[in-house]
This record gives sequence, structure tokens and C-alpha cells, in this order.
Amino acid sequence: METTKVAVVGMGTVGSGVARLLLDHGDRTARHAGRTLWLESVVVRDLAKVRDADLPAGLLSDDLSVITDNPEIRVVAQLIGGLEPARTIMLKLLESGKDIVTANKALLAEHGPELFDRARELGRSIAFEASVAGGIPIVANISQCLSANQVLSLRGILNGTSNYILTQMEEQGDSYNAAVADAQRRGYAEADPTMDVDGADAAQKLAILAHLAFGARVHWRDIPRAGIDTLDLTDLSHAQELGYRIKLLAVAQLLESGLELHVSPTLVKHGSPLAEVRGAFNAVSVVGDAVGPVFFHGLGAGQMPTASAVVADMIDTAVGRTNITFRTLELWSQQEARVQPCDPAQVRSRYYLRLSVDDQPGVMAKVTGVLGDHGISIASIVQHEPDDETPHAVPLIIMTHAASEQASSPAMKALDQLSCVHPPSVCMRVLD
Amino acid sequence: METTKVAVVGMGTVGSGVARLLLDHGDRTARHAGRTLWLESVVVRDLAKVRDADLPAGLLSDDLSVITDNPEIRVVAQLIGGLEPARTIMLKLLESGKDIVTANKALLAEHGPELFDRARELGRSIAFEASVAGGIPIVANISQCLSANQVLSLRGILNGTSNYILTQMEEQGDSYNAAVADAQRRGYAEADPTMDVDGADAAQKLAILAHLAFGARVHWRDIPRAGIDTLDLTDLSHAQELGYRIKLLAVAQLLESGLELHVSPTLVKHGSPLAEVRGAFNAVSVVGDAVGPVFFHGLGAGQMPTASAVVADMIDTAVGRTNITFRTLELWSQQEARVQPCDPAQVRSRYYLRLSVDDQPGVMAKVTGVLGDHGISIASIVQHEPDDETPHAVPLIIMTHAASEQASSPAMKALDQLSCVHPPSVCMRVLD
Repeated sequence: METTKVAVVGMGTVGSGVARLLLDHGDRTARHAGRTLWLESVVVRDLAKVRDADLPAGLLSDDLSVITDNPEIRVVAQLIGGLEPARTIMLKLLESGKDIVTANKALLAEHGPELFDRARELGRSIAFEASVAGGIPIVANISQCLSANQVLSLRGILNGTSNYILTQMEEQGDSYNAAVADAQRRGYAEADPTMDVDGADAAQKLAILAHLAFGARVHWRDIPRAGIDTLDLTDLSHAQELGYRIKLLAVAQLLESGLELHVSPTLVKHGSPLAEVRGAFNAVSVVGDAVGPVFFHGLGAGQMPTASAVVADMIDTAVGRTNITFRTLELWSQQEARVQPCDPAQVRSRYYLRLSVDDQPGVMAKVTGVLGDHGISIASIVQHEPDDETPHAVPLIIMTHAASEQASSPAMKALDQLSCVHPPSVCMRVLD
Repeated sequence: METTKVAVVGMGTVGSGVARLLLDHGDRTARHAGRTLWLESVVVRDLAKVRDADLPAGLLSDDLSVITDNPEIRVVAQLIGGLEPARTIMLKLLESGKDIVTANKALLAEHGPELFDRARELGRSIAFEASVAGGIPIVANISQCLSANQVLSLRGILNGTSNYILTQMEEQGDSYNAAVADAQRRGYAEADPTMDVDGADAAQKLAILAHLAFGARVHWRDIPRAGIDTLDLTDLSHAQELGYRIKLLAVAQLLESGLELHVSPTLVKHGSPLAEVRGAFNAVSVVGDAVGPVFFHGLGAGQMPTASAVVADMIDTAVGRTNITFRTLELWSQQEARVQPCDPAQVRSRYYLRLSVDDQPGVMAKVTGVLGDHGISIASIVQHEPDDETPHAVPLIIMTHAASEQASSPAMKALDQLSCVHPPSVCMRVLD
């Protein structure tokens, strides 16, 4: 049986999982690849650090040239996080003739055009299934399996940390801070969870998927986003009462005016597949013009789910499939974008509003008057009785019919300026 | 841009959808394939039959040699159903040097070994994504995307007709016969729905997936199966009361003693992804040892979802990916099976039992005594009051703990022999 020599750079959580699959399950890999994937070298930054995987003697080095100078190594899993030195290492590996597999979505979201163009110039490939949604093979599904379709929309729960926090808040009644602390204890959240909870991580993944599914060329920082870091427990229970759950959704949807793109906490109806995604799971719902709705659900992070995606990419690269895919995809190339993001102000959505209002006559007329003035029509309205904490203010929950952001944004400002409203009011999208 | 000439044999529902995608969306196909897929010929059995797709003049023929004699045609979608002449046409196409794409699961389930071996001998490939679960790309996901995994279990709702009928019975309270008639009216069921409702169709698909996921070499007729055709509405409502839905599940699961394989109506807990699959949708839940649980949901049949899978396969074949995949997979080859089906008698499951028993003292003791004698332990028991239709008999609903088929099968016989029990009793698996 033929042998393909491979290497791994970076021996953190995912790297250790990859090494374990290659070393302990070589027979399986050989069966699925029709060849042996032989782990020839592992390069790390700090040799002294304790490793999770038991590596055979002589495999480990802190010198990248062990890989770049060895022409027999064809495929390298580059599993160092962050932007630098990851970017420089990636370029060196490409220039030394290696095909790359990576899980580093931040690097692709930031330096994708440079890296992909360089790989193409050099006749090399970059596979990146593990960079989005961990164990869910969403990259392969969009770029290969659904290739007969024009994707019409894509909605994803792409950040498992946020979803875990939301699930804890909803099911355990935890406050946001308590849920974050719990997620940190369980290893679902970093010591600094900012990128996860403010929507940045989801926006990076959405930028990659929007490239693949729509041919959009959008930088993740240009995607309008809101995170769950300002979410109040009370909104989860109001949503629950109305038959909804709140999920951090990443949305890309074709409109006549362009591509709607955003990451935002969104009310999703109970019983719909996205609403039922719990804990650290991820999910992606894709609608194609031929295939209709397709839904994918799985673990979005973690050592072995991510390693599963990396090793599948290594097999695909070793057998030659990745190279074909890479050539046929116009990933981040210099080619013109096939679709432009639409003007966010024109995007229409139903909205959930929560206002804290004075408990006095005439308030309802004023609030509904402001909405009417902005052309926003009300679908339902619930006013609760005052509670002990805020005896003079009552929560007013309004579900609107579809309205544009252009209308809803000034309407929210106008509401907050009413003397009977205690700002800030809450406004979230509702998924139909 | 390079051009690959392709052809279609069979212009039924799916064939028309494929022609439409190729003819109307050539730009899209070219973008995803990096080359033009040019529909050169369409061969049908009866030229007089009205076609759903508007075909350009000169494309249509009833002579297969238009394809086999044209060396420029490389990829052929063979979309004729049934066993013959589909098998002969497939062999002729392979022998004339064509790579094949097919949606014909019955043909593969029956003649897979012959066809795959012949294709391998001739250096050709057969792609068959569309043969299982329509628009859900489960074949590619198992054989490529999850290739780093040992699949541990696979549970599918693979027959949309049965699922539609079950959903109608459950949600509309339709009788089985009324639900079948409704499915026929809507085009979800054939005039003769036997293959769908007796589990044969699901068993054929399960045989294909068990080949891919486990390296099993099993003929679909050897898979133990029960259909929904004997299901009573009353069992759906009893299940509902207990917090379950009844689904026709196709199951393949690795046990120490071999591969558990069966198709059977099964109680699935509300809120679990498989329980929430409604109407004509299909779903597959796969557990891999690295990736953990992954769940796929989409339309399992219908013109455009199936055409989506066929055209994706045509693109993969045209660009060369299928050939690589086909070479690395040991599909139905002469190689020894990697796993043998386990003895069905040893398979353990929880069970739902419904007995019609006399409404008199001592009955419960006799029934539970029989179960105890067979080593079956009871998890819960519900006895309802007699109704007007059968004033002297009452339904007794028992949920058991896990028991082997070896124990449950004689226990059911013994129960039916009790004088206080009115046979036949109902016994169904319960998914944990």
C-alpha cells in the first residue's frame, strides 16, 4: 500500500487529537484513504510543554525546517491559533511545497485572500473544514454536496460557547455572568470569552461560509453583529412565554438588493430545528433552490470533533480530492464578488421589543403611536403587572410585523426619548 | 473553459429535474465544476411520452447507442428505475467507457456487487448519492466527511412516504388507510405503496449505508424488518401520552457481537432530533467515535432534491473527485466483510407492549408474571378504563427495560396464550 507522509504543526488540544487519530487508528485511515498516512514529524513552539498525545520518540521538534526541508512530507496540518506566527508558518509551508490543512478560522478570515492566492500561485491547496462548525462538515457540504444549487439562505448557530451560555440561562435560570463562569469551568469558554460572546467568532465563520455559498467577498468586521453579552435573563423568559428561544444566529440570505448578512441574538420558534439546538452544539440550516431546506447538527468544537474534520481533510488532500476542489472553487480569489452585501438599513425582519414603561394611563397610546409613525405594525403586545423590584415601571413586550432596520432603528430611538419609557429598550430580530 | 459532455438516460420526474438544472443553470454548474457540463444526449424508452422538461430539438433519442457510440460523452446519469432493463443499460454504459451517476437504489441493493466490480474492472466509477435520502448528502458525508471516524451507530428515517403517513396519523388523527390515500393524492405514495410501507425501501437504503459506514456485506432481504402497514392509530396516541412518537427507523449499530441491523417502527422520545422529523422529510443520525453525534435532515425524495444530488454527483464525476473516491472505497467488492450482522436474537432493546386484556381481577398478576418468567423487567405500566367499543377488554400499555429479542419474542407468544389476553398483542422497540 502506498504511503503519504504527513506532519502536524502545533500540539495543542486539536493537534493532540489529530496525532492520536493518525497514530492509534492508522488502519482505519488507510482503509478510507486507500493509502497509509504516516505521521513523520510534529513541530511545536515549546518542547518543554506537556503533550496530551503520547508521541513516539524522535517525532517532536521545535524546528519548522524539519518539515519544510523534507520533500517527502506532502500534507501538513497547521494547527497553531492566532494570526502570527501562524500566517508566516503557513506561507513557509506553502512555499516549501506542502498542501495545508488548517482549523484556524481567524487566520482565514483575516488573511484568506493572501493565503489562498499564494497557494494557487504555487499549485498547492488549503483545506479548512475544521475552521467552521467543528465536527459538522459544512464546508464540504456547501462547496461539493450542494454544488447543483444556488444557496438561497444560510442560518447557523456557529458559536458553541454562546449557545451553551444561552441554554444554561434558559434551562437553569442562570444569570449571564453565572452562565459564563459555568462555561469557563467546563472548558467551553476561554478566560477572556469576548470573541465568543460578542459575535466576532460567529462573524468570522459566517464570512467564510458566505464566501463559499454566495461568492461574497466580505471582511468579517464589516458584518453587522451583536452578541449575547448584553442579553438579560428576563428576555429569555419573555421569549419563552411567547413560544420562542433566543439563539445567536449568523445569517446570510439572498435578497433582490444583495446579500443580507448579520450575527445577532434572534428569537426562534420552539420546535423549529434551530430552536432545539442545545448546549455546546452547532447547527446550520441551508436552503438551496433545488434541494430545499437541509439541516446539519453536531458538536461545533472540542478536541476529537475538530480532529475528525482535520483528519478527513488530510485524507482528502492525500488522495487528491482537495486539490481538485481547491482548483474549482474561487475562494477569496481576485475575482469579482458575485454578490454584494445589501444595505443593512433595507433588511426587513420581525422584531421583539421590550420597553420598561411607567405604569400610568396613556402610555400604551404613546408607544404604539411612535411605532405607527415609523410605519411599524404590531403583531402582539403583552404588558405585565409591576413587580416589587421596580414598582412604578412595567415591562411592555411587543412583537412587530416585518419592518426594515431603517424604520426600526429610529423608532427605537424615538421610543427611548419618550418620558414614560425608561431606556435602554431592547430590540431583537425574530425569525419567521 | 473546458467542456465535459454528459448524457441522461430516462426522462421521468428526476430526469426532467436533472435536465432542467443542466440546461437552465449551466453557468452555475460551470462555476462549481470549473468547466461546462454540456448535455449532449437524452435517451428515453418511449419518444411519444410527454416530458416535463423543455428539451432542445435533436437532444432526445430512443437509441442507447447514441450515447454508447459517442466517445465524447464521459458522464451518464442513468435514471431508469427498476431492475431491468436498468441493469443491462448500466453494464452497456460502463462497457462503452462511461462513468455513471444513478439514483436507482433497488438496482444497487440487488445487483451492487456485479455492477461495482464491473466498473472497477473497467476503470470506471458509479456515483449514487441520490439513491439514499434524496437531497441529504449522506453518502458523501459518511464516505468522505466522516472518514476519520469509526461509525458507531446510524439511525435513519429513510422512507419519506412512511414518515408522511405517520405524521398525518399522529397530527390529524387519520386512520392508516386514510393517511395512505392522502399520501397517494399528494404524490408521496405510489398506487401500490407496498415497498414504502413494509420497510423494504428503507431496508435497501440501510443496506447501502451499512456497506459504506461499516463495511458490512449484507443483502437487504436479510435485514430483519417490520413496516408501518400493521400500525394502529391507538398506538400512536398511547406513545404520544408517554412522551414518544412512532417513527419507521432504519438502524445499524456496532455491538461487540457484530452489527445490529433492522428496520422497524420505533418509539422515539419527543424533543430528540429524530422524533421531530415531520412529513415527507428524511433524517439520519450518525455517531462517530471522534466526531460524536451528527444529524442530517432534508427532503428525502421529490424531483429537485433528488436532481440536486444527481447533478452534484455529475459535477464530482466530471472534475475527477468521484473516481478517486470510488477507488478508495471497497464498495461491494469481493473483499471480505469487515463486520458480520449479529444474531438478531441477541439484540437488546426497550419495548413498548400493548395488550388487550379482560377487565377482571388477577389479570395484571398473570401478565407481569409471564414477563418476569422471561426475565423482562417492567419500567412503567398504564391500564386504561374500558371504552364503549370493547366494554370487557381494556388496553394495557407496558414499557419494559432493555431485553433481548430472544427473551421478548417468546414472552409475547406466551402472553398471547393467556386466556385473559386478546391477541394479537403489539410489541415495538423504544429508542433510548
